Amino acid sequence: MSSTLLDDPLLATYALAASLMILKTASMAWLTVLRMTQVKGGFRAPEDLRQTRLNPQPDPKQLEPNEAVERVRRIHQNDLENIPIFLAAGYLYILTAPPLWLAQVLLYGYVVTRALHFVAYLTAQTHDVRAAMWTPGSLIILFMAGRVALAAVGV
Amino acid sequence: MSSTLLDDPLLATYALAASLMILKTASMAWLTVLRMTQVKGGFRAPEDLRQTRLNPQPDPKQLEPNEAVERVRRIHQNDLENIPIFLAAGYLYILTAPPLWLAQVLLYGYVVTRALHFVAYLTAQTHDVRAAMWTPGSLIILFMAGRVALAAVGV
Amino acid sequence: MSSTLLDDPLLATYALAASLMILKTASMAWLTVLRMTQVKGGFRAPEDLRQTRLNPQPDPKQLEPNEAVERVRRIHQNDLENIPIFLAAGYLYILTAPPLWLAQVLLYGYVVTRALHFVAYLTAQTHDVRAAMWTPGSLIILFMAGRVALAAVGV
Repeated sequence: MSSTLLDDPLLATYALAASLMILKTASMAWLTVLRMTQVKGGFRAPEDLRQTRLNPQPDPKQLEPNEAVERVRRIHQNDLENIPIFLAAGYLYILTAPPLWLAQVLLYGYVVTRALHFVAYLTAQTHDVRAAMWTPGSLIILFMAGRVALAAVGV
Repeated sequence: MSSTLLDDPLLATYALAASLMILKTASMAWLTVLRMTQVKGGFRAPEDLRQTRLNPQPDPKQLEPNEAVERVRRIHQNDLENIPIFLAAGYLYILTAPPLWLAQVLLYGYVVTRALHFVAYLTAQTHDVRAAMWTPGSLIILFMAGRVALAAVGV
Repeated sequence: MSSTLLDDPLLATYALAASLMILKTASMAWLTVLRMTQVKGGFRAPEDLRQTRLNPQPDPKQLEPNEAVERVRRIHQNDLENIPIFLAAGYLYILTAPPLWLAQVLLYGYVVTRALHFVAYLTAQTHDVRAAMWTPGSLIILFMAGRVALAAVGV
């Protein structure tokens, strides 16, 4: 084992937060698959109405939006809006050599807020609650990217 | 301050361009929030019609698409299609040790074209104008990724 | 040529796979443009109905969804759900110092499955076939991210 991840505590912190967020985002696709299987619908492509081993009794209604599936798709879309830029911002942020405790607060804090946002969205909490779970994560991204921009110009 | 960003002018160039693009993408979510607040609508989740402190008088029409909100969502979606792969392509590109001036032209040029694309889309310029602002950025991504692919196989 | 890409075979492997996936994702936008041009429709913004040099005879029907265009948009969206997290997972994975052969199997294998997924989706194969092409790629992302998470905590 000659992994370079553990040599640098900042990199290890980032790698843990980043990999958890990647696993979370990738899991949303599987959750979509699970729900499409449960409701036998929520499909999107016309060819998904062809009779196959996994869809023995196709029905045109399978192409209609299904709220149980659409909910997970909205959560997934919210991940796509946030996780990729978090992954890039976090990596550049640790290159600015921040204090380890601050990097841990920001990076692990982000993971926690995304987990809370997921629970709030999946269980259909009010818009206010969902927004309150989303906001700190977005502010963390803005803070890290702002810090990187300043560091890049020598401030 | 022991940031490693400034040790390498190529990395500093990338970090500045990347952080600006991250800030831009993250800002699109806030612009969506701003417009949803202004028009009191353009929501997407059924639970957003529940009465809350931020939405004291819910109305089913709040779930209908609102063009002012949808416009920002289209701009945001265009960012999602372009910024994450720009962030990855730019990082790998500077690892190919390009001339600094060329890296600056490509990376800062990308930032400028995305800013122009944003203005063109937000102010509803014609499809031709918007396409003309999008095209150079996409070509920059293709060029950088192509250069990386060649460098990776030793060309 | 002082590229650092070739100094490390793991990095060169990642750079090749990553750049090919970036080129693939960026190409989806151009394929959308090509199909919009061919069918003279599938537009999304109201202003796209203004008369311009590229659209001399606008028609309200140009804003209706066009299946040939929507198919490429669905493929593009699937890329957005998968490629950015693949790019991040693959980069962190090579930092765990895996055996070169395993990194090559996972990273090049991912590229191959995405190419097959593209062909299956573009030619409207059944949902079962498309899912079979998507699944190995998603498992590769989950495996790499899981390995990174373990390495980050010293396992």
